[in-house]
This record gives sequence, structure tokens and C-alpha cells, in this order.
Amino acid sequence: MGKRIGKQTVRLSEGVSIISAASTVGPKEAEGPLGAYFDRTVEDAFFGEKSWELAESRFVRENMNLAVDKAGLKMKDMDYILCGDLLNQCTGSTFGIKGFSVPFFGLFGACSTMGESMSLGAMLIDGGFANYVLTGASSHFCAAEKQFRFPLPLGTQRPPTSTWTVTGDGATVLARKGEGPKITEITTGKVVDMGVTDANNMGAAMAPAATALLLAHFEDTGRTPEDYDVIATGDLGTVGRQLVVELMEKDGYKMDSRFTDCGIEIYDDASQDTHAGGSGCACSAVTFCSYFYPKLKSGEIQRMLFIPTGALMSPTSSQQGMAIPGVAHGVVIEGCKGEGEKK
Amino acid sequence: MGKRIGKQTVRLSEGVSIISAASTVGPKEAEGPLGAYFDRTVEDAFFGEKSWELAESRFVRENMNLAVDKAGLKMKDMDYILCGDLLNQCTGSTFGIKGFSVPFFGLFGACSTMGESMSLGAMLIDGGFANYVLTGASSHFCAAEKQFRFPLPLGTQRPPTSTWTVTGDGATVLARKGEGPKITEITTGKVVDMGVTDANNMGAAMAPAATALLLAHFEDTGRTPEDYDVIATGDLGTVGRQLVVELMEKDGYKMDSRFTDCGIEIYDDASQDTHAGGSGCACSAVTFCSYFYPKLKSGEIQRMLFIPTGALMSPTSSQQGMAIPGVAHGVVIEGCKGEGEKK
Repeated sequence: MGKRIGKQTVRLSEGVSIISAASTVGPKEAEGPLGAYFDRTVEDAFFGEKSWELAESRFVRENMNLAVDKAGLKMKDMDYILCGDLLNQCTGSTFGIKGFSVPFFGLFGACSTMGESMSLGAMLIDGGFANYVLTGASSHFCAAEKQFRFPLPLGTQRPPTSTWTVTGDGATVLARKGEGPKITEITTGKVVDMGVTDANNMGAAMAPAATALLLAHFEDTGRTPEDYDVIATGDLGTVGRQLVVELMEKDGYKMDSRFTDCGIEIYDDASQDTHAGGSGCACSAVTFCSYFYPKLKSGEIQRMLFIPTGALMSPTSSQQGMAIPGVAHGVVIEGCKGEGEKK
Repeated sequence: MGKRIGKQTVRLSEGVSIISAASTVGPKEAEGPLGAYFDRTVEDAFFGEKSWELAESRFVRENMNLAVDKAGLKMKDMDYILCGDLLNQCTGSTFGIKGFSVPFFGLFGACSTMGESMSLGAMLIDGGFANYVLTGASSHFCAAEKQFRFPLPLGTQRPPTSTWTVTGDGATVLARKGEGPKITEITTGKVVDMGVTDANNMGAAMAPAATALLLAHFEDTGRTPEDYDVIATGDLGTVGRQLVVELMEKDGYKMDSRFTDCGIEIYDDASQDTHAGGSGCACSAVTFCSYFYPKLKSGEIQRMLFIPTGALMSPTSSQQGMAIPGVAHGVVIEGCKGEGEKK
């Protein structure tokens, strides 16, 4: 049984273990600063398929299988799958998992999906409804550009505020019992629309939602940023992160170097020409699964606030002149007692 | 705390009350056989907005407000909103609820979304994470046709197997305590792909998923169709319903007249030229909220198995020659003790 500890935050009764995490990415991510951390990298973004959409589904399928393998379990042990993606009607996910024969809840939280899937998955387990839940999120640069902006062969110039959609899939297996970092609290975001209309500046569109989530979380828990070893948003990039720092300062919170963003970690703009950073559902998903998860497992990180962020726009809404609402989902993860504790 | 009673089914500890249900629909639905049951009907499908997409968001916004009003509550009393729709990136929902300032989980289950939102909402309450959850689903004929098939002004001929997307929104308020029919069990569907590729025959695409859900539910609970006063699928229409009857017969189950489909209830083909029936996320949502909910509340229906059904395709997946996977989500609802019991 969970417990509400504030308007947007719940505390799990015993914590839900993240018993495995897996990441599979494309060639550009493999060349970035996190290259050595990913479980699997694929040389060609088509991944042996005939379309980018089918390639994304293959990332989902193979990486979710890998997450289950790494947990020492079989797919039939999973009680639910919760995942989503950016493609129209979430076909990256549905075509990816359709062969698994596991009860499925499809999610749409744009790039906040990894936070949404881990939040709902943890609550289903803590509420007594499941022993194992497979959660995940995916995106694909080529499929996303084609769908949201322009066909790639046009070679459209990208403004400095733009971010680069991550190609890949991140997935975790959540469990009632088992070794691993624990999800202990969940702060669920509201949709925030501050009127940003620039589809090439997702960081600015999502920063108000990330800020609102941070403020709600600190109010609900009585904590401050210093209570965390790492606070990592999803895909604000350099532009969005800076906005959050400024907005939080107005409310009296100092966000120092322990506050990072997965979109800043995953690429090196100087050598990779990615501009403001990484984005897409897979950005926070693969960065968490590859880079942060092992540090939580080793105890190097003792408490993390993971906040995948999403921009809730469609090409249709942008073409109709609508602004871009944002959302952010916060998950508190406590690291394993280990090396970190001994420090 | 919930309890797993089978591979796909969980039982809630005390049941979750559906304390209110609201439906708002467009002109075609108002003219149909359920016209007198809807809370609110709108004369023009534009609903005073400049686009069909914005009109859908207005259906969401006004109808969700209505559901909360009918429960005698305020929007700020809601702990979570769970909803979704068919538009790309679910903008019908996100633009509809963005002013509500309530923690939000976006869902994509295609036309099974009402079942998904009620399932997850009930589990969040039963698990101790919420007192009130607002659930819903919406669709809009004009927006859906434009997005999935052809622009309406083309006047494309519709084959006899095609269904008509319902314009409207259905929403319920779920509560830990309170008067109303109770959700007692949830059977969650797997994605089923039997290779149907005809985007004008959604009933055939979804029938295998509905059948699989029924078989799993009966196996998990030990019940038979006779244990229900009503079994209502979401939007199979006449073609899909007949396929389910035939498929179930092969497994030894007789599906008699207590098995209906919301897509059959909502339109009268003879006078409305809707062909195989109604479809879209709103089909099961508004039919449940307007027609079945009052019967559960009065006790006329004592036990109902509600199974919204979804076709998990996108225009891109269809254009790439992929088949249409289906999914179905089952919710058991027990009626109030009342007139029905006295019979």
C-alpha cells in the first residue's frame, strides 16, 4: 500500500527494486561520451529493417528482451509491460512488443515516457498487482525528424537551440523483491503550458514543467536539492537546463553541478554537432539505464531524482499555431548500500 | 492491496467506486438510438473552435469538468487524470486537460483507452496512491478521418465493413469511497496480431484480441458468459462481434444476446448510414457513461464485463504494409444493490 505525502507525491510502502536495466542505441550515441556504457550499440540506424519505424520497433523488441535476460528471468514472468514512444499511435512500442504475449499498457508522455512507465510500474507492484513489470521508452532520430520536422534528405539547417533525437531503447525490470536500487517515491507532473511555440526549442518548452515538478517535489517531501547526489532531467539540453537553474533561483533554490540533464550527458556538441543536446523518449531512458543505473547499483549514487521531461506537441498542433505544453515525471531512486556508503 | 488471481487478472481489495460518469457527444451521436442518454450533445462538430482537433480538446475539457461536477467535487480534488485519444501525440487529451493543474498520466491504447484508464485508475486507488482519479477517452470523426484515411471533402466511399468514429468524450470519476457501481476485477489484454491488413475492417482486426481477452478472463476467474448480465466490447461493430461469437464457439463458449458491442448500440445503420457500427476511443467511453452506467447504478445490471477494444495501427504502419495488431482491456463492474436485486 502506497501513501500520499503531498499533492503530487506518493511514497511506496517498501520500495520497488529495479533488478535490471538495459540500453541499446544507434551509431551516433555509440560515438558519444556514454559510448562505453551502453549494453549494445548498432552500427546502422536501420537495424536490418526496411524502415526507420520498423527499426525502432526492433530496438524495443531486442532491448526489452535483453532487460529481461539481464534480470535472469523469462518474458513470461513479466506481469505487465508499460512503454511508449514518439511515433504516431505509438507503433514503435506496439509493433516492438506484440510478440511478447504479456499484458500491455501503452503510454504517451512524449519524452517523459520513461518516468511515466517507471512511476506506474512501481505503483502497480507496490499496490499488490504485479511481481514483475517491464518498463521502457524508445525513439529514433530518423523516424522522429521525418514525422515532426522535415524529411532528412532535405538537409534542413538546425538552429542552435535544437536538440538531437536519441536513437535507441531503454528498459528496466521492476520487481517486488530482488537486488537493486529502489524506487521509493514518485512525484507526478501536471501539464504546464507557458506559451512557447518554437518546435526547435524543446528545452524552453519543457523547462517550466521541469521547474514545476522540482518545486512540487521539494514542497511535498520537505527536501532541498542538496539531499540528492544527482538530479537528472530528461532532455532539456543546455538551453533548458539553464532556464531551470534561473527559474529555480527565483524560488530560492540553488541548482548546482549535481543537477544535470540526460540530453547534456549523451552527446558532445563540440565533436558531434548536436547543438543543445539530446532529446527523445530514449534520451533519458538509455542514459538512466546505461550510465546512472550502475552507479546506483554500486552505491556511488545514494539518492537520485530522475525527471524525464516531455513536450506534448504534434506537427498538427504546431501547424495550427498552438503552443507546446510540457510535462515532467519525477522518480526517487535510492542506491544500493555499498561502496558509496563506505566513503 | 490488490491480488493477482490469474495470469492476466487482478482482484481489487475492496472495489473502487465509479461515483460519476459523464458523456458529451456530437450531432450524429445525438441523432442515434442513445441520443436521450447523453449528458450533453453539441450541434456542430466544431464545438465553436477553429479546428476539429481543438474541438476534440474542448469535448475533453468540458466533459471532464462535467464528470467532476456530477461527482459533487472540484477539479483540485482529483489526484490523477488518466486519459488518451487517437490523435497523433494524443493532443486531444493533452490540450484538453492542460488547464486543470492535476497530475497527469497520458495513455495510448487506441480505442481501448477507456478500459486502460479505468484499469490503471482503479489500481492506483486500490493500491493506496489516490482517493480520486479522473479517467476518460475521446475521439472525433472529422479529425480521425483526416488523419487515418482521407480528407472528408474527397467524399471517399466507405466499404460495408467500415465503422464510424464517434465524436465525443466519456469520463468517469473513480473513488476509494462513495456511492456507485464498483470496479472489482481487471483483466489486462495482450497485443494480438492475426495479420489483418484492411484499415477499413477494424472489427476483424480487433476480434482476435477481444476473443483472447474473454478466454483469459473466463480462465482466470472460472466464470462463464452466463455469470454476466452484460458483456460489452468497445467498437467491434456487427462484423467484429459476429467474428467473436464464432471464435468463442470454437472454444466452447456460447455468446448470446447478453454480449453486445458499444459500436452496435450507438448508431442505427438503417437510418444513419454508419455501416458496421461505431468506433473510436469515445465509442465505448460515451456508451458506457451514458447507457450502461445508469443501469449499473440502478441495479438493473448487477455484473458487467466491459471490454474496450483497440486497433494499434497508424497511417504509416498501414502504408508500410504492416498488419493491424489489436488489444482489449477488461473491467468487471458490479452494479449497486437496488431494483435489480429485488427482481
